[in-house]
Amino acid sequence: MQSLNDFSSSIQYNEQGLVPIIVQDNSTLEVLMLAYANKTSLELTKQTGYAHYFSRTRKKIWKKGEESGHVQRIIDIRIDCDEDTLLYLVEQSGVSCHTGHKTCFYRDIMGIEKEPVLIEPDTIYR
Amino acid sequence: MQSLNDFSSSIQYNEQGLVPIIVQDNSTLEVLMLAYANKTSLELTKQTGYAHYFSRTRKKIWKKGEESGHVQRIIDIRIDCDEDTLLYLVEQSGVSCHTGHKTCFYRDIMGIEKEPVLIEPDTIYR
Repeated sequence: MQSLNDFSSSIQYNEQGLVPIIVQDNSTLEVLMLAYANKTSLELTKQTGYAHYFSRTRKKIWKKGEESGHVQRIIDIRIDCDEDTLLYLVEQSGVSCHTGHKTCFYRDIMGIEKEPVLIEPDTIYR
Repeated sequence: MQSLNDFSSSIQYNEQGLVPIIVQDNSTLEVLMLAYANKTSLELTKQTGYAHYFSRTRKKIWKKGEESGHVQRIIDIRIDCDEDTLLYLVEQSGVSCHTGHKTCFYRDIMGIEKEPVLIEPDTIYR
């Protein structure tokens, strides 16, 4: 069995130094979102117990829910067989999507909404 | 409501022409794997009803299970809010991981195996 440090250092980051993170609700098992982490945001996630990511558009680390309060408490972190993707099992406060849906995957590929809006988006970011 | 074609054309492919696909078991809701698709493999997936991906290492389209028989029948395809990630809900034949585990995410980040080997890996690829 390898230690935590061994495994974190074996993560295969992509050319941008990022690893994709699948985020799943630990109780309902809904897939909530896909985000990206660099080494520092992964360290912050492990140290604080709350999900931190790297924004590819804003080019900075962000804590999920830092503005909305809709934080993600880490229950478990899984790593895949080829060590280039992580899975965060989280307890989601509020909703994960800026549209007010619980999950970012609220539409099917035909554009039909399969999940309800739980929180009015206007009230998420004050 | 947009048509299927509208939505497929709104997908934001990355610089390599790929979109990440989260694959989830439709009955157990386990997250099975992360893979990548280009336009052609997505079309093949929709046309055949079975998951096709683009291998970044082999630089070619592959049908999941083409050698092992462990195919993924598509139940639903979801698209996320910013249209740069897809979620396939599938019926998985056999196992999704080449290690013989049902899911590729069978270890936590400390290296501890959380899921059993269901099929001996040597017997998967004959």
